[in-house]
Amino acid sequence: MRTLLVIGIGAGDPQQLTLQAIDAIKQTDVFLIVDKGDAKRELVDLRRALLDTHRPDGGYAVVEIDDPQRDRIPDDYQHAVTDWHARRAALFADTIATAVPENGTGAFLVWGDPTLYDSILRILERVQHDGRLPLAVEVVPGITSIQALAARHRIPLNRIGEPIHITTGRQLARGLPAGITNAVVMLDAHHGYAALEEREPGSWHIWWGANLGTRTEQLIAGPIAEAAPMIARAREAARDSAGWVMDTYLVRRAAP
Amino acid sequence: MRTLLVIGIGAGDPQQLTLQAIDAIKQTDVFLIVDKGDAKRELVDLRRALLDTHRPDGGYAVVEIDDPQRDRIPDDYQHAVTDWHARRAALFADTIATAVPENGTGAFLVWGDPTLYDSILRILERVQHDGRLPLAVEVVPGITSIQALAARHRIPLNRIGEPIHITTGRQLARGLPAGITNAVVMLDAHHGYAALEEREPGSWHIWWGANLGTRTEQLIAGPIAEAAPMIARAREAARDSAGWVMDTYLVRRAAP
Ligand SMILES: C[S@@+](CC[C@H](N)C(=O)[O-])C[C@H]1O[C@@H](n2cnc3c(N)ncnc32)[C@H](O)[C@@H]1O
Ligand SMILES: C[S@@+](CC[C@H](N)C(=O)[O-])C[C@H]1O[C@@H](n2cnc3c(N)ncnc32)[C@H](O)[C@@H]1O
Repeated sequence: MRTLLVIGIGAGDPQQLTLQAIDAIKQTDVFLIVDKGDAKRELVDLRRALLDTHRPDGGYAVVEIDDPQRDRIPDDYQHAVTDWHARRAALFADTIATAVPENGTGAFLVWGDPTLYDSILRILERVQHDGRLPLAVEVVPGITSIQALAARHRIPLNRIGEPIHITTGRQLARGLPAGITNAVVMLDAHHGYAALEEREPGSWHIWWGANLGTRTEQLIAGPIAEAAPMIARAREAARDSAGWVMDTYLVRRAAP
Repeated sequence: MRTLLVIGIGAGDPQQLTLQAIDAIKQTDVFLIVDKGDAKRELVDLRRALLDTHRPDGGYAVVEIDDPQRDRIPDDYQHAVTDWHARRAALFADTIATAVPENGTGAFLVWGDPTLYDSILRILERVQHDGRLPLAVEVVPGITSIQALAARHRIPLNRIGEPIHITTGRQLARGLPAGITNAVVMLDAHHGYAALEEREPGSWHIWWGANLGTRTEQLIAGPIAEAAPMIARAREAARDSAGWVMDTYLVRRAAP
Protein backbone atom coordinates (compact mmCIF):
# COMPACT_ATOMS: atom_id res chain seq x y z
CA MET A 1 0.00 0.00 0.00
CA ARG A 2 1.37 3.41 -1.00
CA THR A 3 0.72 6.60 1.00
CA LEU A 4 -0.11 9.79 -0.86
CA LEU A 5 0.14 13.08 1.03
CA VAL A 6 -1.76 15.99 -0.45
CA ILE A 7 -0.05 18.97 1.14
CA GLY A 8 -1.41 22.52 1.04
CA ILE A 9 1.52 24.94 0.78
CA GLY A 10 -0.28 28.28 1.02
CA ALA A 11 -1.03 30.69 -1.80
CA GLY A 12 2.36 32.26 -2.54
CA ASP A 13 4.29 33.16 0.60
CA PRO A 14 6.62 30.31 1.67
CA GLN A 15 6.12 31.50 5.27
CA GLN A 16 2.48 30.34 5.01
CA LEU A 17 3.65 26.73 5.32
CA THR A 18 2.32 25.04 8.47
CA LEU A 19 4.34 22.88 10.85
CA GLN A 20 2.16 19.94 9.77
CA ALA A 21 3.05 20.57 6.12
CA ILE A 22 6.76 20.70 6.97
CA ASP A 23 6.45 17.37 8.84
CA ALA A 24 4.69 15.86 5.83
CA ILE A 25 7.41 17.19 3.49
CA LYS A 26 10.02 15.53 5.71
CA GLN A 27 8.27 12.14 5.47
CA THR A 28 8.02 12.14 1.68
CA ASP A 29 10.07 9.89 -0.60
CA VAL A 30 8.80 11.19 -3.94
CA PHE A 31 7.32 14.60 -4.76
CA LEU A 32 4.92 14.64 -7.69
CA ILE A 33 4.79 18.05 -9.29
CA VAL A 34 2.07 18.80 -11.80
CA ASP A 35 3.41 20.98 -14.58
CA LYS A 36 0.84 23.04 -16.41
CA GLY A 37 3.10 24.63 -19.00
CA ASP A 38 5.50 27.55 -19.19
CA ALA A 39 3.30 30.24 -17.63
CA LYS A 40 3.36 28.38 -14.35
CA ARG A 41 7.12 27.74 -14.36
CA GLU A 42 7.60 30.08 -11.39
CA LEU A 43 5.01 28.11 -9.42
CA VAL A 44 6.96 24.90 -10.03
CA ASP A 45 10.21 26.65 -9.05
CA LEU A 46 8.56 27.88 -5.85
CA ARG A 47 7.85 24.28 -4.87
CA ARG A 48 11.46 23.33 -5.57
CA ALA A 49 12.60 26.21 -3.35
CA LEU A 50 10.39 24.87 -0.52
CA LEU A 51 12.14 21.52 -0.84
CA ASP A 52 15.59 23.14 -0.79
CA THR A 53 14.63 24.91 2.44
CA HIS A 54 12.92 22.06 4.26
CA ARG A 55 14.83 19.06 2.89
CA PRO A 56 18.33 20.55 2.75
CA ASP A 57 19.90 17.08 2.95
CA GLY A 58 18.06 15.76 -0.10
CA GLY A 59 17.11 12.08 0.01
CA TYR A 60 13.99 12.47 -2.08
CA ALA A 61 12.99 12.30 -5.73
CA VAL A 62 10.98 14.80 -7.77
CA VAL A 63 8.82 13.67 -10.66
CA GLU A 64 7.02 16.18 -12.84
CA ILE A 65 3.69 15.08 -14.28
CA ASP A 66 2.91 16.68 -17.59
CA ASP A 67 -0.83 17.20 -17.12
CA PRO A 68 -2.77 16.22 -20.26
CA GLN A 69 -4.26 19.31 -21.86
CA ARG A 70 -8.01 19.48 -22.14
CA ASP A 71 -9.41 19.88 -25.61
CA ARG A 72 -10.49 23.55 -25.31
CA ILE A 73 -13.16 23.78 -28.02
CA PRO A 74 -14.45 20.23 -28.24
CA ASP A 75 -17.34 19.16 -30.45
CA ASP A 76 -18.83 17.11 -27.64
CA TYR A 77 -18.18 19.01 -24.39
CA GLN A 78 -19.46 16.44 -21.91
CA HIS A 79 -17.56 13.65 -23.58
CA ALA A 80 -14.36 15.70 -23.76
CA VAL A 81 -14.44 16.42 -20.01
CA THR A 82 -15.15 12.79 -19.07
CA ASP A 83 -12.41 11.62 -21.38
CA TRP A 84 -9.96 14.13 -19.92
CA HIS A 85 -10.69 12.97 -16.34
CA ALA A 86 -10.18 9.33 -17.36
CA ARG A 87 -6.86 10.16 -19.03
CA ARG A 88 -5.67 12.16 -16.02
CA ALA A 89 -6.56 9.37 -13.56
CA ALA A 90 -4.74 6.81 -15.71
CA LEU A 91 -1.66 9.02 -16.05
CA PHE A 92 -1.53 9.78 -12.33
CA ALA A 93 -2.02 6.11 -11.41
CA ASP A 94 0.78 5.03 -13.77
CA THR A 95 3.14 7.72 -12.54
CA ILE A 96 2.48 6.90 -8.88
CA ALA A 97 2.90 3.17 -9.51
CA THR A 98 6.21 3.71 -11.30
CA ALA A 99 7.70 6.54 -9.23
CA VAL A 100 6.61 5.77 -5.66
CA PRO A 101 7.99 2.54 -4.16
CA GLU A 102 5.51 0.09 -2.63
CA ASN A 103 5.05 1.04 1.04
CA GLY A 104 6.64 4.37 0.14
CA THR A 105 5.23 7.89 0.47
CA GLY A 106 4.47 10.22 -2.39
CA ALA A 107 3.28 13.80 -2.05
CA PHE A 108 1.62 16.52 -4.07
CA LEU A 109 2.45 20.09 -3.06
CA VAL A 110 -0.82 21.89 -3.73
CA TRP A 111 -1.18 25.65 -4.12
CA GLY A 112 -3.30 27.17 -1.32
CA ASP A 113 -5.54 24.53 0.23
CA PRO A 114 -6.07 21.20 -1.57
CA THR A 115 -9.85 21.18 -1.00
CA LEU A 116 -10.57 24.52 -2.69
CA TYR A 117 -10.95 24.57 -6.50
CA ASP A 118 -8.27 21.97 -7.07
CA SER A 119 -8.75 18.69 -8.91
CA ILE A 120 -6.10 16.52 -7.27
CA LEU A 121 -8.38 14.96 -4.61
CA ARG A 122 -10.93 14.13 -7.28
CA ILE A 123 -8.27 12.45 -9.41
CA LEU A 124 -6.95 10.42 -6.47
CA GLU A 125 -10.48 9.38 -5.53
CA ARG A 126 -10.93 8.13 -9.05
CA VAL A 127 -7.64 6.21 -8.89
CA GLN A 128 -8.80 4.61 -5.62
CA HIS A 129 -12.22 3.92 -7.08
CA ASP A 130 -10.78 2.27 -10.21
CA GLY A 131 -9.21 -0.19 -7.79
CA ARG A 132 -6.02 -0.59 -9.78
CA LEU A 133 -3.69 0.96 -7.23
CA PRO A 134 -4.31 0.74 -3.46
CA LEU A 135 -3.60 4.19 -1.97
CA ALA A 136 -3.86 5.70 1.51
CA VAL A 137 -4.55 9.40 1.04
CA GLU A 138 -3.88 12.04 3.71
CA VAL A 139 -4.68 15.75 3.32
CA VAL A 140 -2.73 18.54 5.00
CA PRO A 141 -4.73 21.80 4.98
CA GLY A 142 -3.15 24.99 3.64
CA ILE A 143 -3.74 28.75 3.80
CA THR A 144 -6.09 29.60 0.93
CA SER A 145 -5.76 32.61 -1.36
CA ILE A 146 -9.02 33.80 0.27
CA GLN A 147 -7.38 33.96 3.70
CA ALA A 148 -4.31 35.61 2.13
CA LEU A 149 -6.51 38.25 0.46
CA ALA A 150 -8.48 39.14 3.59
CA ALA A 151 -5.33 39.22 5.75
CA ARG A 152 -3.54 41.64 3.41
CA HIS A 153 -6.59 43.94 3.34
CA ARG A 154 -7.08 43.43 7.10
CA ILE A 155 -10.83 42.94 6.69
CA PRO A 156 -13.31 40.35 7.94
CA LEU A 157 -14.76 38.26 5.08
CA ASN A 158 -18.27 38.73 6.45
CA ARG A 159 -20.31 41.40 8.15
CA ILE A 160 -21.74 40.20 11.48
CA GLY A 161 -23.73 36.98 11.00
CA GLU A 162 -23.81 37.25 7.19
CA PRO A 163 -23.02 34.34 4.85
CA ILE A 164 -19.97 34.34 2.56
CA HIS A 165 -20.33 33.09 -0.99
CA ILE A 166 -17.26 31.66 -2.77
CA THR A 167 -17.59 31.49 -6.50
CA THR A 168 -15.82 31.56 -9.87
CA GLY A 169 -15.67 34.18 -12.60
CA ARG A 170 -17.74 31.91 -14.82
CA GLN A 171 -20.52 31.56 -12.22
CA LEU A 172 -20.44 35.28 -11.41
CA ALA A 173 -21.14 36.05 -15.06
CA ARG A 174 -24.54 34.34 -14.55
CA GLY A 175 -25.28 36.61 -11.56
CA LEU A 176 -25.12 35.98 -7.82
CA PRO A 177 -27.94 34.13 -6.03
CA ALA A 178 -30.51 36.49 -4.50
CA GLY A 179 -29.57 37.91 -1.12
CA ILE A 180 -25.80 37.40 -1.33
CA THR A 181 -23.97 40.31 0.31
CA ASN A 182 -20.38 38.99 0.54
CA ALA A 183 -18.80 37.07 -2.33
CA VAL A 184 -15.25 35.95 -2.95
CA VAL A 185 -14.45 35.38 -6.61
CA MET A 186 -11.68 33.11 -7.89
CA LEU A 187 -10.64 31.94 -11.33
CA ASP A 188 -11.89 35.09 -13.02
CA ALA A 189 -9.98 36.15 -16.12
CA HIS A 190 -12.65 38.57 -17.35
CA HIS A 191 -13.20 41.30 -14.73
CA GLY A 192 -16.53 39.79 -13.68
CA TYR A 193 -17.01 42.44 -10.97
CA ALA A 194 -17.83 44.97 -13.72
CA ALA A 195 -21.19 43.24 -14.24
CA LEU A 196 -22.14 43.81 -10.57
CA GLU A 197 -21.51 47.52 -10.97
CA GLU A 198 -23.54 47.62 -14.19
CA ARG A 199 -26.53 45.89 -12.61
CA GLU A 200 -26.51 47.88 -9.37
CA PRO A 201 -24.39 51.00 -9.76
CA GLY A 202 -22.77 52.22 -6.54
CA SER A 203 -23.88 49.22 -4.46
CA TRP A 204 -20.69 47.18 -4.28
CA HIS A 205 -17.25 47.61 -2.72
CA ILE A 206 -14.31 45.49 -3.86
CA TRP A 207 -11.10 44.29 -2.17
CA TRP A 208 -8.85 42.84 -4.85
CA GLY A 209 -5.42 41.18 -4.81
CA ALA A 210 -3.09 39.63 -7.37
CA ASN A 211 -0.06 37.36 -6.88
CA LEU A 212 -0.69 37.59 -3.15
CA GLY A 213 2.22 36.73 -0.92
CA THR A 214 4.77 37.05 -3.73
CA ARG A 215 7.14 39.88 -4.65
CA THR A 216 4.74 40.99 -7.43
CA GLU A 217 1.70 41.30 -5.15
CA GLN A 218 -0.85 44.00 -5.99
CA LEU A 219 -3.72 45.22 -3.76
CA ILE A 220 -6.60 47.56 -4.63
CA ALA A 221 -9.76 48.41 -2.66
CA GLY A 222 -12.67 50.78 -3.17
CA PRO A 223 -16.14 51.15 -4.64
CA ILE A 224 -16.14 49.09 -7.85
CA ALA A 225 -16.59 52.10 -10.14
CA GLU A 226 -13.48 53.78 -8.72
CA ALA A 227 -11.41 50.63 -8.29
CA ALA A 228 -12.06 49.02 -11.69
CA PRO A 229 -9.60 51.04 -13.79
CA MET A 230 -6.92 50.71 -11.09
CA ILE A 231 -7.45 46.95 -10.94
CA ALA A 232 -7.10 46.64 -14.71
CA ARG A 233 -3.76 48.48 -14.55
CA ALA A 234 -2.50 46.60 -11.47
CA ARG A 235 -3.39 43.27 -13.04
CA GLU A 236 -1.27 44.08 -16.09
CA ALA A 237 1.54 45.31 -13.84
CA ALA A 238 1.52 42.00 -11.94
CA ARG A 239 1.54 40.03 -15.17
CA ASP A 240 4.33 42.14 -16.65
CA SER A 241 6.62 41.74 -13.68
CA ALA A 242 5.89 38.08 -12.84
CA GLY A 243 5.08 36.68 -16.27
CA TRP A 244 1.83 35.28 -14.82
CA VAL A 245 -1.10 36.62 -12.80
CA MET A 246 -3.57 35.03 -10.38
CA ASP A 247 -6.11 37.29 -8.73
CA THR A 248 -8.93 36.98 -6.22
CA TYR A 249 -11.38 39.47 -4.81
CA LEU A 250 -14.06 40.04 -2.22
CA VAL A 251 -17.12 42.06 -3.20
CA ARG A 252 -19.49 43.33 -0.51
CA ARG A 253 -22.80 45.00 -1.04
CA ALA A 254 -23.39 48.25 0.85
CA ALA A 255 -25.58 47.85 3.93
CA PRO A 256 -29.17 48.88 3.14
CA MET B 1 2.42 54.05 17.58
CA ARG B 2 1.64 50.55 18.84
CA THR B 3 1.62 47.49 16.56
CA LEU B 4 -1.15 44.94 16.95
CA LEU B 5 -0.66 41.52 15.35
CA VAL B 6 -3.80 39.51 14.77
CA ILE B 7 -2.48 35.99 14.43
CA GLY B 8 -4.51 33.03 13.15
CA ILE B 9 -3.44 29.90 15.04
CA GLY B 10 -5.48 27.24 13.22
CA ALA B 11 -8.61 25.52 14.46
CA GLY B 12 -7.32 23.12 17.11
CA ASP B 13 -4.16 21.31 16.06
CA PRO B 14 -1.04 23.19 17.23
CA GLN B 15 0.75 21.78 14.15
CA GLN B 16 -1.51 23.98 11.99
CA LEU B 17 0.55 27.00 13.00
CA THR B 18 2.31 28.63 10.03
CA LEU B 19 5.93 29.79 9.96
CA GLN B 20 4.62 33.35 9.61
CA ALA B 21 2.52 32.92 12.77
CA ILE B 22 5.54 31.60 14.67
CA ASP B 23 7.60 34.61 13.53
CA ALA B 24 4.82 36.93 14.67
CA ILE B 25 4.64 35.15 18.04
CA LYS B 26 8.39 35.66 18.44
CA GLN B 27 8.07 39.42 17.82
CA THR B 28 5.32 39.97 20.37
CA ASP B 29 5.78 41.78 23.69
CA VAL B 30 2.28 41.32 25.08
CA PHE B 31 -0.28 38.65 24.24
CA LEU B 32 -3.89 39.68 24.71
CA ILE B 33 -6.10 36.68 25.35
CA VAL B 34 -9.84 37.09 25.22
CA ASP B 35 -11.50 34.97 27.86
CA LYS B 36 -15.08 33.98 27.18
CA GLY B 37 -15.85 32.13 30.40
CA ASP B 38 -15.22 28.67 31.83
CA ALA B 39 -16.41 26.60 28.86
CA LYS B 40 -13.57 27.94 26.76
CA ARG B 41 -10.89 27.42 29.43
CA GLU B 42 -9.23 24.71 27.33
CA LEU B 43 -9.02 27.11 24.39
CA VAL B 44 -7.19 29.63 26.55
CA ASP B 45 -4.89 26.87 27.84
CA LEU B 46 -4.14 25.82 24.27
CA ARG B 47 -2.89 29.31 23.52
CA ARG B 48 -0.67 29.24 26.59
CA ALA B 49 0.75 25.89 25.43
CA LEU B 50 1.61 27.47 22.05
CA LEU B 51 3.55 30.17 23.88
CA ASP B 52 5.41 27.60 26.00
CA THR B 53 6.44 25.82 22.80
CA HIS B 54 7.39 28.80 20.66
CA ARG B 55 8.61 31.23 23.30
CA PRO B 56 10.42 28.82 25.63
CA ASP B 57 12.62 31.61 26.99
CA GLY B 58 9.71 33.78 28.08
CA GLY B 59 10.26 37.53 27.79
CA TYR B 60 6.62 38.33 27.11
CA ALA B 61 3.51 39.25 29.09
CA VAL B 62 0.04 37.72 28.88
CA VAL B 63 -3.04 39.80 29.62
CA GLU B 64 -6.47 38.22 29.64
CA ILE B 65 -9.36 40.42 28.55
CA ASP B 66 -12.61 39.56 30.22
CA ASP B 67 -14.92 40.11 27.25
CA PRO B 68 -18.08 42.00 28.31
CA GLN B 69 -21.10 39.70 28.07
CA ARG B 70 -23.85 40.69 25.71
CA ASP B 71 -27.29 41.15 27.17
CA ARG B 72 -28.88 37.96 25.74
CA ILE B 73 -32.59 38.85 25.79
CA PRO B 74 -32.55 42.62 25.54
CA ASP B 75 -35.68 44.76 25.28
CA ASP B 76 -34.12 46.81 22.53
CA TYR B 77 -32.00 44.43 20.40
CA GLN B 78 -30.38 46.95 18.06
CA HIS B 79 -29.43 49.24 20.91
CA ALA B 80 -28.04 46.36 22.97
CA VAL B 81 -25.75 45.25 20.14
CA THR B 82 -24.50 48.77 19.42
CA ASP B 83 -23.93 49.37 23.09
CA TRP B 84 -22.04 46.08 23.40
CA HIS B 85 -19.74 46.96 20.49
CA ALA B 86 -19.01 50.36 21.99
CA ARG B 87 -18.19 48.80 25.37
CA ARG B 88 -15.92 46.20 23.78
CA ALA B 89 -14.01 48.78 21.73
CA ALA B 90 -13.51 50.95 24.83
CA LEU B 91 -12.34 47.97 26.92
CA PHE B 92 -9.93 46.75 24.24
CA ALA B 93 -8.54 50.27 23.69
CA ASP B 94 -7.96 50.74 27.43
CA THR B 95 -6.34 47.33 27.82
CA ILE B 96 -4.04 47.87 24.85
CA ALA B 97 -3.08 51.37 26.04
CA THR B 98 -2.25 50.07 29.52
CA ALA B 99 -0.69 46.69 28.70
CA VAL B 100 1.24 47.32 25.46
CA PRO B 101 4.15 49.79 25.75
CA GLU B 102 4.28 52.66 23.24
CA ASN B 103 6.20 51.45 20.17
CA GLY B 104 5.64 47.93 21.50
CA THR B 105 3.89 45.00 19.87
CA GLY B 106 0.73 43.36 21.14
CA ALA B 107 -0.89 40.26 19.63
CA PHE B 108 -4.19 38.45 19.60
CA LEU B 109 -4.00 34.69 19.02
CA VAL B 110 -7.18 34.03 17.06
CA TRP B 111 -8.80 30.63 16.62
CA GLY B 112 -8.74 29.47 12.99
CA ASP B 113 -8.40 32.45 10.66
CA PRO B 114 -9.00 36.00 12.00
CA THR B 115 -11.13 37.06 9.01
CA LEU B 116 -13.77 34.30 9.32
CA TYR B 117 -16.62 34.83 11.81
CA ASP B 118 -14.45 36.58 14.36
CA SER B 119 -15.06 40.05 15.76
CA ILE B 120 -11.52 41.12 16.64
CA LEU B 121 -10.76 42.96 13.37
CA ARG B 122 -14.05 44.82 13.66
CA ILE B 123 -13.21 45.88 17.20
CA LEU B 124 -9.73 47.06 16.23
CA GLU B 125 -11.14 48.97 13.28
CA ARG B 126 -13.47 50.73 15.66
CA VAL B 127 -10.58 51.54 18.02
CA GLN B 128 -8.65 53.01 15.07
CA HIS B 129 -11.71 54.87 13.87
CA ASP B 130 -12.41 56.37 17.28
CA GLY B 131 -8.98 57.94 16.93
CA ARG B 132 -8.10 57.60 20.59
CA LEU B 133 -5.25 55.13 20.16
CA PRO B 134 -3.02 55.07 17.05
CA LEU B 135 -2.57 51.41 16.06
CA ALA B 136 -0.80 49.64 13.18
CA VAL B 137 -2.70 46.40 12.60
CA GLU B 138 -1.20 43.37 10.80
CA VAL B 139 -3.11 40.15 10.08
CA VAL B 140 -1.49 36.71 9.86
CA PRO B 141 -3.80 34.22 8.12
CA GLY B 142 -4.62 30.89 9.79
CA ILE B 143 -6.00 27.50 8.80
CA THR B 144 -9.79 27.74 9.16
CA SER B 145 -12.03 25.06 10.67
CA ILE B 146 -13.45 24.71 7.14
CA GLN B 147 -10.05 23.65 5.75
CA ALA B 148 -9.56 21.35 8.77
CA LEU B 149 -12.96 19.72 8.16
CA ALA B 150 -12.41 19.08 4.45
CA ALA B 151 -8.85 17.79 5.04
CA ARG B 152 -9.97 15.26 7.65
CA HIS B 153 -12.74 14.00 5.35
CA ARG B 154 -10.34 14.18 2.35
CA ILE B 155 -12.98 15.82 0.16
CA PRO B 156 -13.03 18.85 -2.11
CA LEU B 157 -15.32 21.59 -0.79
CA ASN B 158 -16.88 22.01 -4.23
CA ARG B 159 -17.87 19.89 -7.17
CA ILE B 160 -16.19 21.06 -10.41
CA GLY B 161 -16.89 24.74 -11.02
CA GLU B 162 -19.64 24.98 -8.37
CA PRO B 163 -19.84 27.80 -5.78
CA ILE B 164 -19.38 27.17 -2.06
CA HIS B 165 -21.65 28.90 0.41
CA ILE B 166 -20.40 29.55 3.96
CA THR B 167 -23.11 30.28 6.45
CA THR B 168 -24.25 30.09 10.08
CA GLY B 169 -26.79 27.89 11.84
CA ARG B 170 -29.00 30.91 12.29
CA GLN B 171 -28.98 31.75 8.56
CA LEU B 172 -29.48 28.11 7.58
CA ALA B 173 -32.69 28.03 9.64
CA ARG B 174 -34.08 30.60 7.15
CA GLY B 175 -33.21 28.31 4.23
CA LEU B 176 -30.36 28.41 1.71
CA PRO B 177 -30.48 30.79 -1.27
CA ALA B 178 -31.86 29.14 -4.42
CA GLY B 179 -29.35 27.09 -6.38
CA ILE B 180 -26.81 26.48 -3.59
CA THR B 181 -25.36 22.98 -3.89
CA ASN B 182 -22.40 23.13 -1.45
CA ALA B 183 -22.74 24.83 1.94
CA VAL B 184 -20.44 24.92 4.95
CA VAL B 185 -22.24 25.66 8.18
CA MET B 186 -20.59 27.13 11.28
CA LEU B 187 -21.91 28.37 14.63
CA ASP B 188 -24.83 25.95 14.60
CA ALA B 189 -25.97 24.74 18.02
CA HIS B 190 -29.31 23.41 16.77
CA HIS B 191 -28.69 20.66 14.19
CA GLY B 192 -29.78 22.96 11.35
CA TYR B 193 -29.03 20.25 8.73
CA ALA B 194 -32.20 18.44 9.85
CA ALA B 195 -34.29 21.14 8.15
CA LEU B 196 -32.58 20.43 4.79
CA GLU B 197 -33.53 16.78 5.04
CA GLU B 198 -37.12 17.68 5.98
CA ARG B 199 -37.53 20.02 3.02
CA GLU B 200 -35.89 17.73 0.45
CA PRO B 201 -35.68 14.19 1.78
CA GLY B 202 -32.76 12.17 0.43
CA SER B 203 -31.19 15.08 -1.47
CA TRP B 204 -28.32 16.05 0.82
CA HIS B 205 -25.10 14.43 1.98
CA ILE B 206 -23.27 15.71 5.07
CA TRP B 207 -19.62 15.69 6.19
CA TRP B 208 -19.52 16.72 9.85
CA GLY B 209 -16.71 17.27 12.36
CA ALA B 210 -16.45 18.36 15.98
CA ASN B 211 -13.41 19.54 17.96
CA LEU B 212 -11.34 19.06 14.81
CA GLY B 213 -7.62 18.74 15.32
CA THR B 214 -7.94 18.03 19.05
CA ARG B 215 -7.83 14.74 20.98
CA THR B 216 -11.66 14.74 21.20
CA GLU B 217 -12.22 15.09 17.45
CA GLN B 218 -15.29 13.38 15.98
CA LEU B 219 -16.06 12.79 12.28
CA ILE B 220 -19.27 11.55 10.66
CA ALA B 221 -20.28 11.44 6.98
CA GLY B 222 -23.28 10.12 5.07
CA PRO B 223 -26.70 10.98 3.70
CA ILE B 224 -28.29 13.33 6.28
CA ALA B 225 -31.05 10.89 7.25
CA GLU B 226 -28.50 8.21 8.16
CA ALA B 227 -25.89 10.52 9.62
CA ALA B 228 -28.17 12.65 11.82
CA PRO B 229 -28.56 10.26 14.78
CA MET B 230 -24.83 9.44 14.70
CA ILE B 231 -23.96 13.15 14.69
CA ALA B 232 -26.20 13.80 17.69
CA ARG B 233 -24.41 11.04 19.63
CA ALA B 234 -20.91 12.07 18.50
CA ARG B 235 -21.59 15.68 19.42
CA GLU B 236 -22.50 14.67 22.97
CA ALA B 237 -19.45 12.38 23.13
CA ALA B 238 -17.18 15.29 22.14
CA ARG B 239 -18.80 17.57 24.71
CA ASP B 240 -18.57 14.91 27.43
CA SER B 241 -14.89 14.24 26.90
CA ALA B 242 -13.72 17.82 26.24
CA GLY B 243 -16.17 19.80 28.34
CA TRP B 244 -16.96 21.89 25.22
CA VAL B 245 -17.92 21.27 21.62
CA MET B 246 -17.45 23.21 18.37
CA ASP B 247 -18.69 21.64 15.19
CA THR B 248 -18.76 22.46 11.49
CA TYR B 249 -20.18 20.65 8.50
CA LEU B 250 -20.37 20.60 4.73
CA VAL B 251 -23.68 19.72 3.10
CA ARG B 252 -23.82 18.88 -0.60
CA ARG B 253 -26.88 18.34 -2.71
CA ALA B 254 -26.94 15.22 -4.85
CA ALA B 255 -26.19 15.89 -8.52
CA PRO B 256 -29.44 16.05 -10.53
C1 LIG C 1 -7.34 26.63 -9.29
S1 LIG C 1 -7.67 27.82 -8.05
C2 LIG C 1 -6.77 27.17 -6.69
C3 LIG C 1 -7.08 27.82 -5.36
C4 LIG C 1 -6.18 27.33 -4.24
N1 LIG C 1 -6.38 25.91 -3.99
C5 LIG C 1 -6.39 28.12 -2.95
O1 LIG C 1 -6.61 27.50 -1.89
O2 LIG C 1 -6.28 29.35 -3.00
C6 LIG C 1 -6.68 29.17 -8.63
C7 LIG C 1 -7.28 30.52 -8.27
O3 LIG C 1 -6.90 30.83 -6.94
C8 LIG C 1 -6.69 32.21 -6.80
N2 LIG C 1 -5.29 32.41 -6.33
C9 LIG C 1 -4.41 31.44 -6.03
N3 LIG C 1 -3.26 31.97 -5.60
C10 LIG C 1 -3.41 33.31 -5.62
C11 LIG C 1 -2.56 34.40 -5.25
N4 LIG C 1 -1.32 34.21 -4.80
N5 LIG C 1 -3.06 35.65 -5.39
C12 LIG C 1 -4.30 35.86 -5.84
N6 LIG C 1 -5.14 34.86 -6.19
C13 LIG C 1 -4.70 33.60 -6.07
C14 LIG C 1 -6.97 32.84 -8.15
O4 LIG C 1 -8.32 33.25 -8.16
C15 LIG C 1 -6.77 31.68 -9.08
O5 LIG C 1 -7.53 31.84 -10.26
C1 LIG D 1 -16.72 32.17 16.04
S1 LIG D 1 -16.46 30.99 14.77
C2 LIG D 1 -14.74 31.18 14.50
C3 LIG D 1 -14.23 30.49 13.26
C4 LIG D 1 -12.72 30.55 13.11
N1 LIG D 1 -12.26 31.93 12.97
C5 LIG D 1 -12.22 29.71 11.94
O1 LIG D 1 -11.47 30.23 11.09
O2 LIG D 1 -12.54 28.52 11.91
C6 LIG D 1 -16.60 29.49 15.70
C7 LIG D 1 -17.14 28.33 14.88
O3 LIG D 1 -16.08 27.78 14.12
C8 LIG D 1 -16.26 26.38 14.00
N2 LIG D 1 -15.07 25.72 14.60
C9 LIG D 1 -13.98 26.34 15.11
N3 LIG D 1 -13.08 25.45 15.53
C10 LIG D 1 -13.58 24.23 15.27
C11 LIG D 1 -13.10 22.89 15.45
N4 LIG D 1 -11.90 22.66 16.01
N5 LIG D 1 -13.89 21.87 15.07
C12 LIG D 1 -15.09 22.10 14.50
N6 LIG D 1 -15.59 23.33 14.31
C13 LIG D 1 -14.85 24.39 14.68
C14 LIG D 1 -17.54 26.03 14.71
O4 LIG D 1 -18.58 26.04 13.75
C15 LIG D 1 -17.71 27.18 15.67
O5 LIG D 1 -19.06 27.41 15.98
